[in-house]
Amino acid sequence: MDKELRQRFIDIVGEENYTDQLIDLVSYSYDGSELSFRPEAAIWAQSTEQVSKVLALANEERVPVTPRGAGTGLAGAALPGRGGIVLDLSRMNKILDISLVNRQARVQAGVVYRELQEALAPLGFFYPPDPASGKVATLGGNVGTNAGGLKGAKYGVTKNYVLGLEVVLADGSILKTGANCLKCSSGYNLTGLFVGSEGTLGVITEIILKILPEPKEKATAMATFDTLTQAGDAIAGILGSISMPCVLEIMDEVCIDLLNKYSKDTSLPKAEAMLLAETDAFTEGEASQQLDVIIEVMKKHGAKNITKAESRTQAENLWTARRAMGGVMTAPRGAFLAEDVTVPPDQISALLRGVHEIGRKYNIITPTLGHVGDGNLHPGLLYDKNDPDECERMEKASAEIFKLAVELGGTLSGEHGIGAVKAPFMSLEHDATSIGTMSAIKAALDPNNILNPGKLALTTG
Amino acid sequence: MDKELRQRFIDIVGEENYTDQLIDLVSYSYDGSELSFRPEAAIWAQSTEQVSKVLALANEERVPVTPRGAGTGLAGAALPGRGGIVLDLSRMNKILDISLVNRQARVQAGVVYRELQEALAPLGFFYPPDPASGKVATLGGNVGTNAGGLKGAKYGVTKNYVLGLEVVLADGSILKTGANCLKCSSGYNLTGLFVGSEGTLGVITEIILKILPEPKEKATAMATFDTLTQAGDAIAGILGSISMPCVLEIMDEVCIDLLNKYSKDTSLPKAEAMLLAETDAFTEGEASQQLDVIIEVMKKHGAKNITKAESRTQAENLWTARRAMGGVMTAPRGAFLAEDVTVPPDQISALLRGVHEIGRKYNIITPTLGHVGDGNLHPGLLYDKNDPDECERMEKASAEIFKLAVELGGTLSGEHGIGAVKAPFMSLEHDATSIGTMSAIKAALDPNNILNPGKLALTTG
Repeated sequence: MDKELRQRFIDIVGEENYTDQLIDLVSYSYDGSELSFRPEAAIWAQSTEQVSKVLALANEERVPVTPRGAGTGLAGAALPGRGGIVLDLSRMNKILDISLVNRQARVQAGVVYRELQEALAPLGFFYPPDPASGKVATLGGNVGTNAGGLKGAKYGVTKNYVLGLEVVLADGSILKTGANCLKCSSGYNLTGLFVGSEGTLGVITEIILKILPEPKEKATAMATFDTLTQAGDAIAGILGSISMPCVLEIMDEVCIDLLNKYSKDTSLPKAEAMLLAETDAFTEGEASQQLDVIIEVMKKHGAKNITKAESRTQAENLWTARRAMGGVMTAPRGAFLAEDVTVPPDQISALLRGVHEIGRKYNIITPTLGHVGDGNLHPGLLYDKNDPDECERMEKASAEIFKLAVELGGTLSGEHGIGAVKAPFMSLEHDATSIGTMSAIKAALDPNNILNPGKLALTTG
Repeated sequence: MDKELRQRFIDIVGEENYTDQLIDLVSYSYDGSELSFRPEAAIWAQSTEQVSKVLALANEERVPVTPRGAGTGLAGAALPGRGGIVLDLSRMNKILDISLVNRQARVQAGVVYRELQEALAPLGFFYPPDPASGKVATLGGNVGTNAGGLKGAKYGVTKNYVLGLEVVLADGSILKTGANCLKCSSGYNLTGLFVGSEGTLGVITEIILKILPEPKEKATAMATFDTLTQAGDAIAGILGSISMPCVLEIMDEVCIDLLNKYSKDTSLPKAEAMLLAETDAFTEGEASQQLDVIIEVMKKHGAKNITKAESRTQAENLWTARRAMGGVMTAPRGAFLAEDVTVPPDQISALLRGVHEIGRKYNIITPTLGHVGDGNLHPGLLYDKNDPDECERMEKASAEIFKLAVELGGTLSGEHGIGAVKAPFMSLEHDATSIGTMSAIKAALDPNNILNPGKLALTTG
């Protein structure tokens, strides 16, 4: 970046909020994905006004700007694919307002997910989406990627809870979307459009979220299935039943083997699949009744080792295996890639079987877990970063999993987004009209293509 | 329309699906609003392919096209404000698929809301939004206006249940948005953008909806409040409590007086407000516990005449007054206009008080009811259509109610949409950046402005 332009950015945010030191730029070259792109500079924004001025200048000078929260995203959406500036929002981290009466929280984009939950918990309220990265991820990043979590089957995802946004547009103008209201049908649903747009349409600076009283009673059960077919039938049966699981997690045979081999705390019976189900409610009776419906369905489809927790401690024990998965994924080959495909729930066992075949074909270990209550599976691809051949096989296996998911009527991403990682695969799922429509919207809102350019396979990007 | 062009449209849909007979055109000049605009022709679409060809031709010849379902909308969105063609989707009325396992229903846009519910009910499932016009309104119209209903406080509105759409764009190309999946974070949330866009961005031909198992246990209570302040405090207390009412309806003093005067079945105590609360769940215990929390809050804020239904019949009795409101609205002055403003819940009593003041100022009877669980109020404005002075006063009162709602941090529409009726008021709520952003999207997707032009106060429309 030339000296004069550098100084103009510094004039906006102050010397202390601008960096082009190599050590910082290297940090900003990475996120939760395997990709890496280095920016020319990074800026810490302190206010919406600063964001506005930074974008106005960047737009004038055609400098790419990639907004970033905590950088936990798995799709490379926060990486500056075409250089320019990384605009770090993590210092805009104030919870501006919590109103139980209005069932709303208003936060700056840089607030860490967990901080909001910690502020709500003593009040008996919660913010329902539950991304696994919530301890570090920012709410701005959650909104940018339409983050999900384990409880989507009952509670949905981020987009279901965003009531309004403050967004700085490419030319620096400040847009308010939605309303401070629980219901709004006034003009286009711009809020809905910006959620999940991965920083390509504007920089989100403030968020109005819907919050809810938390159902504290939980009931938890686990069961194993000798065959994937039985597990698939049980999932179908549960979703077709009169029950609302808030958690319905699957772990396949490969997961079970990994846990038995590498996790000290876990000793699981041999099975092709394990299901963990949890219900929640305001009364113990409701949670228990709902879980009983689920257990009955599992029994009908040949479940073994059915355990219904009789206490919180027992419930925690049932969660041990699931929670241990993160730790064992890297054990066999050093690295792992978590995929994020989603299929109609009746295609889950077909997807699992297909993933196993693909794993065998490319000689890649593919432990698959996921949130089957909404059809969102995370096939893991284990590989050794220092083995170029295995890396190549892993990439090929990954690509085949995308293809399979789309063939089964599914989607490339349930909750991680597209970013840079899945951009090359967009045309598997989206035809020219779909990508053309997205690109037309991008061109209308960011005509100079300065906002996170190159992401999402937009033809104007 | 000139003869040759007329013939080209007929060639697409057949003589029997095209009309320019005066009697038909007069029918299509009206919807649920007070406005009237006459089209040059009306077309009944039988298939997506026909819609595509009609739009391609209309786009080429710059003929305005206004899509229409059952025409129950209250904002004039289905009226051909600039003539051209009304494209009636009501004959595309097939339920294409219901999958409990996938928790999805796929329908053509012309399916009547009630028909879907009737298909789901025997299966124990339901589609949660519940617009009052559901007996006749089409699901395409519901999606176009982002319709709500009484149960929004717990279940949200249409946009929370639309998983994917088939939309014909202005140039006739066919766009698929979303996925057949319960979770999707793949590319822009075009589904979210099209919901509530009132036919200005494309013609919706197919809809994928999320469906849920229906909680059949209900608990119902009613109470009166001597003062609006007490009622407002009770509403605030309920929303701030650990409870999820699925219904929380208010009727003000004017409603109560109207019912006592004009409804045979109702005899209500004198009060400034009445609240009707209902909870639902899969077990009686949960529904009852949740209602008890609500009743405790009402007691704390001076509720009188608290009645908790002990049976379904008693519950039905508690609903009698609310259900009778539709019938008494026209009794005093012959006509009534139902407004649809929404405010943050803590502003409900301020809004109600303001509506009463406005009613007094303009000498208009203003019975106000509404879904206070999500802050959505429907002030009614009673007037005599043959009294020009009263009509003028009613219009002025209506405009002041919009202004008040926005001043209280609210929105022009909770669930009816903007259409033609509220277009003149858009700038009260939306600044130039907001309207500019909406207009830029409109221009990008419909450059010749053929789709429902003139609605939503778009500067490009």
